[in-house]
Amino acid sequence: MIRFVLDTSIFVNPDVRGKLGDNPTEAMKSFLSYAEKLFGRVEFYVSPGIYRELTNFVEEEEVSPDIELYIIRKPPNVHDIRIPAFVVYELIEEIRRRIDKGLRVAETAVRESVIDINNVDKIIRKLRRNYRRALREGILDSKEDFELILLAKELDATIVSADIGILTWAQKMGIKWVDAVKFKEVLEELVEKVGKG
Amino acid sequence: MIRFVLDTSIFVNPDVRGKLGDNPTEAMKSFLSYAEKLFGRVEFYVSPGIYRELTNFVEEEEVSPDIELYIIRKPPNVHDIRIPAFVVYELIEEIRRRIDKGLRVAETAVRESVIDINNVDKIIRKLRRNYRRALREGILDSKEDFELILLAKELDATIVSADIGILTWAQKMGIKWVDAVKFKEVLEELVEKVGKG
Repeated sequence: MIRFVLDTSIFVNPDVRGKLGDNPTEAMKSFLSYAEKLFGRVEFYVSPGIYRELTNFVEEEEVSPDIELYIIRKPPNVHDIRIPAFVVYELIEEIRRRIDKGLRVAETAVRESVIDINNVDKIIRKLRRNYRRALREGILDSKEDFELILLAKELDATIVSADIGILTWAQKMGIKWVDAVKFKEVLEELVEKVGKG
Repeated sequence: MIRFVLDTSIFVNPDVRGKLGDNPTEAMKSFLSYAEKLFGRVEFYVSPGIYRELTNFVEEEEVSPDIELYIIRKPPNVHDIRIPAFVVYELIEEIRRRIDKGLRVAETAVRESVIDINNVDKIIRKLRRNYRRALREGILDSKEDFELILLAKELDATIVSADIGILTWAQKMGIKWVDAVKFKEVLEELVEKVGKG
């Protein structure tokens, strides 16, 4: 059995879902048509957090019950899986560096605001953007992302994502991955090779 | 063999080292006199990061070579130790919460500074204090702290620390611990029970 663990970006991120459909619901529908052809040979999983995110973007009534049938929802078994210490060590180091960077971003915003006291809202918007970039971009920072990685590890599945933070961790933890941008081609090829077409 | 892994706070933090000595060097000397009596029965370890911190505070020439003899320096074996996934999961969740809090602290500082433009340095000092409190206090945020925990896990040793972040993680990971404040009493008792004194 070939197994994939799916990230939301496949359906939600316009730059990524492009080839699958013009909106999340269309992308999901076209994915499900491939999944149907692969039923019994290829399994697609999502973690509970990712499923919640998906259902915020996809019109459920238009894809049910196929979405329940072809996308398996499963939490990772967080009590049995173990992470190599050096991976956590690197995570802590990375977070520490970013926390220091976040403070510098905040100090810059304070110094800007006293020079330009009439644009405080604009400065705060910029602060939020820069702070987010400093602390969150390209790093594993949510339990939803971590769940996805753990699930792939537990199932020995391939992660399908376009998120740099997720892909970086997948590589550290020895997990197979496919870039979400290439997922449609992978599905087509799979249908040709193993599907019931 | 009874084993302890030592944190810097035992010697450096005035509220903690109190009973051992008036300054880091005195505290180290009085610790080493206990360690000498316990040699061969009780082992004391530090990780490389903690040892570096210690040597910044202690006058090395006053405690050498006893410090090298009675305090064993050893890095944890980060490639063999594995961490239960749920512990990392909780760490990520905690960090995410604190990152959000850090942004609120930064926004507050910006809003304060436009009202009080002549006190920008004071506001920045307050920002640093509050940011640090929001993001770092009581959390495992440095690789030095993590090394100490891993070393204790690897050696099945007891952690001696007064740091809330370290003690919280020690408990999550099933590691024995002694509050650094009680360490002098523990050493006295040990000398009585197992020492050659």
